[in-house]
Amino acid sequence: MKLYVQDIESMDKRYRTNFVNSLPGFKSANLIGTISHSGIPNLAIFSSVIHVGASPALMGMLFRPVSVPRHTYQNIKHNGLFTINHISDYMYKRAHLTAARYPDDISEFEAVGLTPEYSDSFDAPYVREASVKIGLKLVEEQEIHSNKTIFAIGQIEEVILPDNIILEDGVIDLQKVRTITISSLNSYHKTELIERLPYAKPEI
Amino acid sequence: MKLYVQDIESMDKRYRTNFVNSLPGFKSANLIGTISHSGIPNLAIFSSVIHVGASPALMGMLFRPVSVPRHTYQNIKHNGLFTINHISDYMYKRAHLTAARYPDDISEFEAVGLTPEYSDSFDAPYVREASVKIGLKLVEEQEIHSNKTIFAIGQIEEVILPDNIILEDGVIDLQKVRTITISSLNSYHKTELIERLPYAKPEI
Repeated sequence: MKLYVQDIESMDKRYRTNFVNSLPGFKSANLIGTISHSGIPNLAIFSSVIHVGASPALMGMLFRPVSVPRHTYQNIKHNGLFTINHISDYMYKRAHLTAARYPDDISEFEAVGLTPEYSDSFDAPYVREASVKIGLKLVEEQEIHSNKTIFAIGQIEEVILPDNIILEDGVIDLQKVRTITISSLNSYHKTELIERLPYAKPEI
Repeated sequence: MKLYVQDIESMDKRYRTNFVNSLPGFKSANLIGTISHSGIPNLAIFSSVIHVGASPALMGMLFRPVSVPRHTYQNIKHNGLFTINHISDYMYKRAHLTAARYPDDISEFEAVGLTPEYSDSFDAPYVREASVKIGLKLVEEQEIHSNKTIFAIGQIEEVILPDNIILEDGVIDLQKVRTITISSLNSYHKTELIERLPYAKPEI
């Protein structure tokens, strides 16, 4: 079947949101940890985290328009720091609940049953239950004029992860740490390795 | 174990690239189709495609710095159109080969054994073998000053997909169409649904 732009625009709002969110394919599943100016740790699920560069080591993610106040974005603007924590199959239900709107004075960590953990060297909360944890400082923001979202760039300051999960070529064994993936907004999937391929060279 | 920024910077280049590319978790797996000013169809694998907005329907992706000429980016700049095509388990090997550098006058479609397919209503090549195909027009670019990459935004013009794969709430059944996911740069994974969760509401 073929859908044109007017077919998509005429969809019911929730249906359209689910449909368009399915179009990129499988998405990364992360919890972003921040701390408010009054010291309340905040946690929010994001499926838009992508690789931006390896040297310097940069990651990017998309924030919704700031016209409606968002705790995660406000907190990052306040102290410049945030953590990215992989969502695993043993805590995706708790991770999913962080998408609900909680009042300012409630920590999502407490509300959903996850544990804030602080590194000596970094002033934003990690998720104790996460296997791969990344501490970043905000280095850049670009407003997307088309819909007022914000593409934010963080530079990696530290990475905390289990021993023996980095393969000999530097790849992290994401299945071993039970990292999962998201489709659309609410479907959680585990993965099974098909194959690791060698670096691609022209066959001609 | 804990790695600091200086540990990452001191890694061997290929090892660091593999490591940092693993940090976002699982990534979307897509082929981007374009056509050159001389009519040669181009195809390139991307793992950075993300959802940007549902209304208008927007998708974003990251391009490497343009200091080295890149066919995909040049072609999109030329006619303003590109296609996003899901990578499935039956053609990931061919998709992976598009990452190799081919000369200007060679179409990656031909080099790797995939078939360009044109819609009457859209002037950029789709991948016939892909199950989910999206036609987009370039609407915005933001240069990431931190490393000169470019975050580009496309507005969805049309979507071509099999009948009966959209669930009743608008979600596309990505497993049914055999869309796969990528970790780091060269690991291909199929997925298994754990659970679809309801919209998250505060429990307090």
